Amino acid sequence: MNYLLTMMFDGSYFHGWQTQKNADSVQSNVQNAVAKLFGERVHVQGCSRTDAGVHARCFKANFHTQKEMAPETVIGGLNFYLREAISVYDCQIVPETFNARFDCERKQYHYEFYTGRERNPFLAHRAAQVKHSLDVDLMNEQAKYYIGTHDFSAFCAAGSSVISNVRTVKAADVFSLDDRIVFSVEADGFLYNMVRIMAGTLLYISEGKIPVGEIPAILASKDRTLAGKTMPPDGLYLNQVWFKEGTM
Amino acid sequence: MNYLLTMMFDGSYFHGWQTQKNADSVQSNVQNAVAKLFGERVHVQGCSRTDAGVHARCFKANFHTQKEMAPETVIGGLNFYLREAISVYDCQIVPETFNARFDCERKQYHYEFYTGRERNPFLAHRAAQVKHSLDVDLMNEQAKYYIGTHDFSAFCAAGSSVISNVRTVKAADVFSLDDRIVFSVEADGFLYNMVRIMAGTLLYISEGKIPVGEIPAILASKDRTLAGKTMPPDGLYLNQVWFKEGTM
Repeated sequence: MNYLLTMMFDGSYFHGWQTQKNADSVQSNVQNAVAKLFGERVHVQGCSRTDAGVHARCFKANFHTQKEMAPETVIGGLNFYLREAISVYDCQIVPETFNARFDCERKQYHYEFYTGRERNPFLAHRAAQVKHSLDVDLMNEQAKYYIGTHDFSAFCAAGSSVISNVRTVKAADVFSLDDRIVFSVEADGFLYNMVRIMAGTLLYISEGKIPVGEIPAILASKDRTLAGKTMPPDGLYLNQVWFKEGTM
Repeated sequence: MNYLLTMMFDGSYFHGWQTQKNADSVQSNVQNAVAKLFGERVHVQGCSRTDAGVHARCFKANFHTQKEMAPETVIGGLNFYLREAISVYDCQIVPETFNARFDCERKQYHYEFYTGRERNPFLAHRAAQVKHSLDVDLMNEQAKYYIGTHDFSAFCAAGSSVISNVRTVKAADVFSLDDRIVFSVEADGFLYNMVRIMAGTLLYISEGKIPVGEIPAILASKDRTLAGKTMPPDGLYLNQVWFKEGTM
């Protein structure tokens, strides 16, 4: 059987999704829970890697087992074995050919800020503190420059090994949500640190450190040094994932 | 000088406000930070006690010192010494006669629920999980029965030692806020566990375990066993505090 899980995790407790030596990862926690529940040690394939400290409200991953189990039992059983910082809230049986990484078509990330001179204990490790107010309307307007198919080299950490830095951004919005200010971005794929640099660039525009209307020139330059800073992982959430039609 | 602090704290890290033997309290953390900053060991008087696990978005406390310091310096200095789970976000110099406990006129608490079959890692210890949907409109309508001056003995934990169980509730509302459902209540004072029992009673009404329209009869009975369950501390927040006119 091929099971597709949907889960949430508080990334502040983990060194990212991907299993690494000497570091606690979400993947190794999920693989251990699957081993306990099914009595089989399997590879759990995530829809993407995430960095240390990055959160997910919707992370999808699939795994193959010999045994068959009702999806409701898989959800309850995995949550029983998993720690509180990870929650499985959906499980579907999908075709044997389905792969959560290769069949992923589009993802939505949120980068979340909060403003206030003093820290907020309820948002510690959950959002990035900015000590002054933000111009939400301006940031939202400037975010639209990200939409479309562009070479995002200027918005990519050095040392990335991908072949092409061209990605297609489908939507980019900035809005207030409860006590946070959210930069929401949807694309067919993301380069290393791309969302965190896009968020840092919008922040610099609001702060007057990068001129209004400059994003097209930064994109065209392919020069990382012209974009804003890389924001910390605390504010980053994988928020939604879509798969190619007909794959599941 | 008499300083009035306003702070937030994530109560899941503490055994309540009040200093106790062999338990980590918010008060002892704040008193230690004041001692480091001012070089004086003083008593910090909170506006109320809070139970273990209970949070505050607005907790007020005052203390007297020999030394004078600018309020901005007090805020920055205390936050430097305090751990992340406590944040001081306002400081005012108040008359020597002001006392945060005795001059408190009214408080607002929030009790926060979230609904969903599976746990939410981002709301762990921050809200009470209810595994089914809640009838927010019905709960809001029924909450209005709490408004007014009543004997709240039926909504008070056994063993409470106060002289009178009469309190005046000024406002009581239930509404959705972001991913939570909030019961907000304002009164001139609260009995031990009162908000948690009021919240549990509204939950039982939504679940059909207590009949609609029953709150007046429960109040009149003064019988704790007729009200709903005591909700866990995780969902409880001291949300706002008001002082008597002319005291500060």
